[in-house]
Formats: sequence, structure tokens, C-alpha cells
Amino acid sequence: MKEITSQSVDIALIHHPVLGRNKEVIGSAITNLDLHDIARTAKTYGIGAYYIVTPYTDQQELVSEIIDHWQSGHGSIYNPARKEAFSLVRLADSLEEVIADIRRNRNEVPKIVTTSALRQNSSIAFAESRKRIESGESTLLLFGTAHGLAPELLELADYSLPAITGKTSYNHLSVRAAVAIICDRLLGQFK
Amino acid sequence: MKEITSQSVDIALIHHPVLGRNKEVIGSAITNLDLHDIARTAKTYGIGAYYIVTPYTDQQELVSEIIDHWQSGHGSIYNPARKEAFSLVRLADSLEEVIADIRRNRNEVPKIVTTSALRQNSSIAFAESRKRIESGESTLLLFGTAHGLAPELLELADYSLPAITGKTSYNHLSVRAAVAIICDRLLGQFK
Repeated sequence: MKEITSQSVDIALIHHPVLGRNKEVIGSAITNLDLHDIARTAKTYGIGAYYIVTPYTDQQELVSEIIDHWQSGHGSIYNPARKEAFSLVRLADSLEEVIADIRRNRNEVPKIVTTSALRQNSSIAFAESRKRIESGESTLLLFGTAHGLAPELLELADYSLPAITGKTSYNHLSVRAAVAIICDRLLGQFK
Repeated sequence: MKEITSQSVDIALIHHPVLGRNKEVIGSAITNLDLHDIARTAKTYGIGAYYIVTPYTDQQELVSEIIDHWQSGHGSIYNPARKEAFSLVRLADSLEEVIADIRRNRNEVPKIVTTSALRQNSSIAFAESRKRIESGESTLLLFGTAHGLAPELLELADYSLPAITGKTSYNHLSVRAAVAIICDRLLGQFK
């Protein structure tokens, strides 16, 4: 399978610290379909690694079991395309561990790019981010589960992306849809 | 909530007739998260109605229960934003019933636009489809579950959209991701 390897973009899906319904900082539970859908999107768009970030050991065990099933268990035989997508999935305790892993693997410190359904500070246009990626800038895209990334993560951003706007002011996309749309805006091939 | 109503685009998610693993024509089961994710995407992009198409009465009952939960049951109080998304969800036996419903509601016969992870006949560029929609052309986007729309549905297309290409030849996006990307390409507001 032909891959374009000039880009170096990774994705981290954060389960802690994220916001709850009342904007309090919480840890969220793993959603099985987040693993599948985002791994498939990541594989489509040539993402380097897709990190599932959770500090909870029971949740880490669940993720490991799912990865094993699709990487070396029955799932890998039943659905080789899914195995291929799951080859991108990594488990990490924290954002620090993600960055350390990228440094180890690529000898690069990635730019941290945050996403949110709300307006953020120091946001740049998608087209500008696309150019930076095309120029070879190592980029780590952060996505929050539950009600989004906690402020302490947003503050770490080298830059942020604008909220996705459709045709309405409704801003409640699933994180699975948001990852797909943002990958397409930054990395997609239009015709 | 401000809505742009000049467009008239609907979505149908087909559960029969679709293709199975070996390209045989099958009927697929309802996936709960297809209802949620695609309803949220549809609401974001100002889609008129999101039709769940299945001929199976047990599956129709399941869909009705899920819609009721989020439209008038506990879910509608717990999550008003989800209620708003579910207000777009309709149940239909068949594509014919979808088209009849659109004719009844809008007095329009929509152009049928098919999607596929594979190359199709009479495919037009996303930019061209976007122009047709912006000109006010009534458009029904068909998405297939399982391994995609059956040939008998592809043949009904007024036109088809190109397969989504990322950076690789991997073409196994989830239908939830494909709907999000296609809505964004046809209806999204970029900055």
C-alpha cells in the first residue's frame, strides 16, 4: 500500500483531563467505536500514530484487549483492513508520554495543535495549518472526549484550530466526526 | 438557532439492499452510533432530514425506540442538544418511501447522489456538486452500511461522488466518518 510519508502528523485522543457537563475537569471512559473509527480515519489520511490517552489502568487494560483482538487475535484474521488501521493505535498515560514517544520515534518535538467546538486563543486558519504540515512541521493534533479538552491542555497549544462550522450554529459533532473532518481539511485530496 | 434554509439536502442511510463481505446483497443491522453521529453531523450542516432506511420491522422498532428516547423520553431532558439532532431522524422502509416523503414535504423530486469507497460511473467533482447544491438543487445523499450500496441503488444515481481520498490508498472509512467528510466538502464553511 502506497503511503505518503513526508508528513508527520499524529493524533491524541484525550480521556483525562477533559471537561464534564458542567465544565468541571473529569476523566472519561473509553468508547470502543472511538478506537475503530479514528484508527480507520487515521490510516486513510496517513497519520503516523493514534494515541489513546488515559491514566486509568482498568481503561488501559480494556484498550490493550481491543488492540490485541484486532492486531493478533481473531479480529486480525476476520478483518485484515481493520488490523491495518489498528496498527496505528498506541496507549499512553498522559500527553507527556505521547510527546516523549514521538521524540523517541522521530527525534522531533511536535507542535501541539488543539481542537475545540468553542473559540480558542491563537487559532489559525485550516489552510495555514495545512501549509505548515505540508512544509514538514511535526504536528500533534489533540482531541478531547466528553465536553472537550481541559483548559490546562488548551494552554499547552502551539496553536489551535478554529471550531468546525457547518451551516448552522449547532456545535455538537461527535469526536469521531470532528477528527474525520479535520483530517480531511488538513490532509485530504480534493477533486 | 440561526439556520440557512436555502439548501435542500437530505441524507439516507441504507441498510438494505447493501453489499456483504463477499459482495452479495444483504440487509444490515442498525448501529446505534450511526443514528447519533450522523444526526449530529446532519444538524451541524443544515441537512433537512436524515432517513434511516430498513425494511425489517424489528429493526424499525429499535430505531423508533431510540428516536423516542431522545425526542420525548429521558434523553430529551438529559441532553437537549441530542434531542435537537434527533429531530432530523426519519424512518423509512425503502428508498422509494424516502423520495415520496421528500415530494410530500417539499414538493420536489431530489437528485439522487450516491457515495462509495470505490470508483463509480458518472461521478462529478465535489466542487461541482457543491455548486449544484448552492444553486438550490434538491439533493438526496445515499450512504450504504456494511460494504456499501448495492448495484441496483448505484444505478439509480443522477450522479455519484468520487471516493474520498486521503493520503493513502486505504479506503475503509466508517460510514460515520464518510458522512462527516462529505457533508463538510459539500456544505462546510472553511476559514
